[in-house]
Amino acid sequence: MTHDNNTLHINAFLMGVGHHEAAWRHPRTEAHRVLDVAHYQELARIAERGRLDSIFFADNLAVGAYVKRNVHTVFEPITLLSAIAPVTEKIGLIATASTSYHEPYALARAFASLDHLSNGRAGWNIVTSGTEAEAFNFGYDAIPEHARRYARAEEFVDVAEQLWDSWEPGALVLDADEGVFADPGKVHAVDYAGERFRVRGPLNSPRSPQGRPLLVQAGSSEDGKEFAARHAEAVFTAQQTLAEGQAFYRDLKDRLARHGRAEGDLKVLPGLVPFIADTEAEAVALQQEFTGLISPDYALRQLSTMLGLDLTAYPLDRPLPPLPDESAVEGQKSRFTLVKQLAAGRELTVRQLIGELGGGRGHRTLAGTPEQIADDLETWFRGGAADGFNIMPPYLPGGLTDFVERVVPILQRRGLFRTEYTATTLRGHYGLAPVPNRFADAVPATA
Amino acid sequence: MTHDNNTLHINAFLMGVGHHEAAWRHPRTEAHRVLDVAHYQELARIAERGRLDSIFFADNLAVGAYVKRNVHTVFEPITLLSAIAPVTEKIGLIATASTSYHEPYALARAFASLDHLSNGRAGWNIVTSGTEAEAFNFGYDAIPEHARRYARAEEFVDVAEQLWDSWEPGALVLDADEGVFADPGKVHAVDYAGERFRVRGPLNSPRSPQGRPLLVQAGSSEDGKEFAARHAEAVFTAQQTLAEGQAFYRDLKDRLARHGRAEGDLKVLPGLVPFIADTEAEAVALQQEFTGLISPDYALRQLSTMLGLDLTAYPLDRPLPPLPDESAVEGQKSRFTLVKQLAAGRELTVRQLIGELGGGRGHRTLAGTPEQIADDLETWFRGGAADGFNIMPPYLPGGLTDFVERVVPILQRRGLFRTEYTATTLRGHYGLAPVPNRFADAVPATA
Ligand SMILES: Cc1cc2nc3c(=O)[nH]c(=O)nc-3n(C[C@H](O)[C@H](O)[C@H](O)COP(=O)(O)O)c2cc1C
Ligand SMILES: Cc1cc2nc3c(=O)[nH]c(=O)nc-3n(C[C@H](O)[C@H](O)[C@H](O)COP(=O)(O)O)c2cc1C
Repeated sequence: MTHDNNTLHINAFLMGVGHHEAAWRHPRTEAHRVLDVAHYQELARIAERGRLDSIFFADNLAVGAYVKRNVHTVFEPITLLSAIAPVTEKIGLIATASTSYHEPYALARAFASLDHLSNGRAGWNIVTSGTEAEAFNFGYDAIPEHARRYARAEEFVDVAEQLWDSWEPGALVLDADEGVFADPGKVHAVDYAGERFRVRGPLNSPRSPQGRPLLVQAGSSEDGKEFAARHAEAVFTAQQTLAEGQAFYRDLKDRLARHGRAEGDLKVLPGLVPFIADTEAEAVALQQEFTGLISPDYALRQLSTMLGLDLTAYPLDRPLPPLPDESAVEGQKSRFTLVKQLAAGRELTVRQLIGELGGGRGHRTLAGTPEQIADDLETWFRGGAADGFNIMPPYLPGGLTDFVERVVPILQRRGLFRTEYTATTLRGHYGLAPVPNRFADAVPATA
Repeated sequence: MTHDNNTLHINAFLMGVGHHEAAWRHPRTEAHRVLDVAHYQELARIAERGRLDSIFFADNLAVGAYVKRNVHTVFEPITLLSAIAPVTEKIGLIATASTSYHEPYALARAFASLDHLSNGRAGWNIVTSGTEAEAFNFGYDAIPEHARRYARAEEFVDVAEQLWDSWEPGALVLDADEGVFADPGKVHAVDYAGERFRVRGPLNSPRSPQGRPLLVQAGSSEDGKEFAARHAEAVFTAQQTLAEGQAFYRDLKDRLARHGRAEGDLKVLPGLVPFIADTEAEAVALQQEFTGLISPDYALRQLSTMLGLDLTAYPLDRPLPPLPDESAVEGQKSRFTLVKQLAAGRELTVRQLIGELGGGRGHRTLAGTPEQIADDLETWFRGGAADGFNIMPPYLPGGLTDFVERVVPILQRRGLFRTEYTATTLRGHYGLAPVPNRFADAVPATA
């Protein structure tokens, strides 16, 4: 048991009108709400009613694989969460942003701004952008190599962390009589000069309530795991079986000591797509309704993107063609391997595979009663495969409401989940200590 | 008379606890509110009560000239306006963002997102970033040349406009039965290949309510005016005298025809810093209180930044040293010339000059009764120097409240300003027609 305490953490991963790729076609959703900010505000309030740690929005810097059938993202997450902050009070707000196509000064500043305006609830899901379509929107002819993307991410986060520290706590003086707005001795240039970035600083924003956003990461390749071990405070991951989840969990936790970090400093949150109903049979039937709405032509394009391989003309009732080794992949390495193993391990045809992937693009799907879902979460949590979960409702808002109203109370009764917020910041919800400031710690502040 | 109708437009330019550089030291403000999102939300609601067209936040991608005395900006404007959108209904939301240090795809998307979440109230003040400090935060050793910055701005806006058009109106189908999310024939790649940018598109956001944000611009150099004549729908400008205001207004309007635009397609909004009181003497005394709180060491640094010349060791009671011609300036050309002319025209010492600049960094300041302020606005409006005004309250919220409660009703009684909003979009408030879509216009949509 490596948990600091006995309670688990829950993030709600919100996507349009649901994670299932055909959610927008099902009568439990209203498709036009993908464009309605009030829809997302309502989701956030539902999640907050459930006392969840955070909500999270993914992002892709390109239109989806096939707009005829669906789009991945509509709103830019930092702006969307800024519009959600005023209608919520406690819940954490995690936005995805790419290190491959932004500038560190501007992005560090945007997150500082979100942290200010949410009173310390900002989180950043750091991604390196694994698709070719994104590269084409930023002047590249091809996707930059996987290793180079992670090297850039490393430098990017390094600069950003220094910028967030550039204003020490207490730098803002606001002494009207003396006319001292800030103490210049506590506002530092960073003079960063790396291979890719040169940034003078300081940041054009006084220190935000959390000092910096919660750093979240979701890549599971070797480079991704090392990056997480150095920087991440929470990790989203797709794991299909308990054994795989346990192995991933151990792997990640074991890397922390080498970077001077404790096991509790990083929370591992595997994803789950829950179909919830009164009986298991009803839950399975509900899931099948969604599977039945999948458009194979869309699913094949999605699958092609995940594998970096054109399968759009491939027959549906045959197994996948032979796939290369992960080392040959420059896109999303760990997602490639996960799909490959899923298909091989269960000897799925392509049609069966796209059915499996429809709910969460590789995330584990579970259909059951509220008790069964709670049992499953408890098993993973107590079994050393998770510090908490990334809950991915297949349809929204219903799938989230059901989770909050039916599964959360069970977890609470079992003492596995908070019944009230006890912290005010996102980092606090995850049981993590405040981030120290490198300048304030290096040179003790004087009066 | 070139106005389409008889009413003027008002933008509230909001800055911290006031435009006056010493505002935070005056008892009419609470300095700590510069960091409080509720402060900015309150300002927006006050402006909306006054039926103003829009609010606007400036931005600089560097910490201010001298943090000991003040900072320019705290919040990033797009995130801040996203947090203001949910607590307002009608008022336009204009954010500054730089074309010199962002990527067009990401910025076009952020503005599309703001336009979606505000239901058509987004505006973009397009700036080229005129200070060296900003260049240092984005990998440059010196500020990129003025002409190059404007050339980049031109390409940047060109890409952005194409991206905003990449989803035709009606592209979103949402036909659940047929499984058609969007009509791929109405979602266009842009395949932009310019000197600086290569962007494939389409934008990862369906068309927003306004199609694109209102395009605002605030540079008054020759390059700046040409840029405005091509792209801007509203122009902020600092003009000190009615004659200068008239000349600028004419100059800009005369440029429009060459670009196939009508005079009404671009609204000219000179800035005004109003000190409002029951009597003129009280208003002047109030202004003097603020002037008395100026820290000369800060004002000299600000002046140095505006002139691109180190004046920090210069004697206060002498006139400015001889200044070069605008053509030698690579920073903010028109601001340089404005300050130079202001100092020379009125034979000011440096101390007097910094007093004059304290309220609005070169914008016109007027101390008077509500009637006097209204008279002045009417004179500029009827005199062909303005389509409306950029009101820059010297202290906040009080200076805005006074303007809304005391000056606006006079303008309304005179039939010069709306008493109710008649449009729902920002572009509508400014009396501008919706933007056509290049693809929809080129190829008529088929069923
Ligand atoms: C829950 C979860 C959410 C993710 N969200 C995003 C996202 O929003 N944008 C993105 O580009 N990648 C996202 N990813 C992908 C990862 O960031 C990463 O690119 C992918 O897992 C492959 O990483 P690897 O190459 O290190 O294996 C997500 C992954 C997971 C598990
Ligand atoms: C009302 C007003 C607001 C402005 N706001 C900004 C701003 O937020 N950020 C910025 O970099 N420049 C801002 N500027 C400066 C202009 O964008 C421009 O850089 C400056 O006027 C010099 O332009 P020029 O070089 O074309 O003369 C503003 C100017 C005015 C008049």
